[in-house]
Amino acid sequence: MDTVGTHLIAELWECKIEKLNDMEYNEQILVEAALKAGAEVREVTFHKFSPQGISGVVLISESHLTIHSFPEHAYASIDVYTCGKRMNPNKAIQYITESLEAKSVDKVEIPRGKAPIQINSQAF
Amino acid sequence: MDTVGTHLIAELWECKIEKLNDMEYNEQILVEAALKAGAEVREVTFHKFSPQGISGVVLISESHLTIHSFPEHAYASIDVYTCGKRMNPNKAIQYITESLEAKSVDKVEIPRGKAPIQINSQAF
Repeated sequence: MDTVGTHLIAELWECKIEKLNDMEYNEQILVEAALKAGAEVREVTFHKFSPQGISGVVLISESHLTIHSFPEHAYASIDVYTCGKRMNPNKAIQYITESLEAKSVDKVEIPRGKAPIQINSQAF
Repeated sequence: MDTVGTHLIAELWECKIEKLNDMEYNEQILVEAALKAGAEVREVTFHKFSPQGISGVVLISESHLTIHSFPEHAYASIDVYTCGKRMNPNKAIQYITESLEAKSVDKVEIPRGKAPIQINSQAF
């Protein structure tokens, strides 16, 4: 496989707090986001912290999706990293954003697998 | 927990090819890298692709480490994302770089959990 990939980083603010703390829900939306982007899901691992917060990863044939949620700040940190040209990582970000009802989103695209590493400011 | 974190992205080139394709070895070095950075390991998930290549994630209390290896290109793509001030993600990157015997490394630091998302060009 070619090394070239697309890594989207998104900071979701003002999310629906109860959704951020529901591990099963976050697992479902991250897997669904991977499928919507055209990915093949390989492994799914989530962890719930006490008293709150969730971390999770969906390993896909084309790289990964991750989430770290901070219900106390209504914030979730998202990464969607895909290799190959047939994927659409933006669809994954959009689905997660809608599913967590984020009112404010900051996102960037970072091409991977080729030097130098830089933010693609033309991405959105 | 505070939302602010440090996300290091590293592209490792000219790695030792047989190490890139050894899943057990990659699991060991990513867990060890997490510990060296001062992290608390929560979940470890790796996947080996056919005919070659490995993807893996170490979920830590402070976020995550990931690797995607492409032995056919002697390349590994690394992310080390940590929250909190007591961690040193650079130690993790350094350990992984040495363990895979990468001869060329390109890396950037991206502060997370605060807007706007941008590369911290003063990091290294």
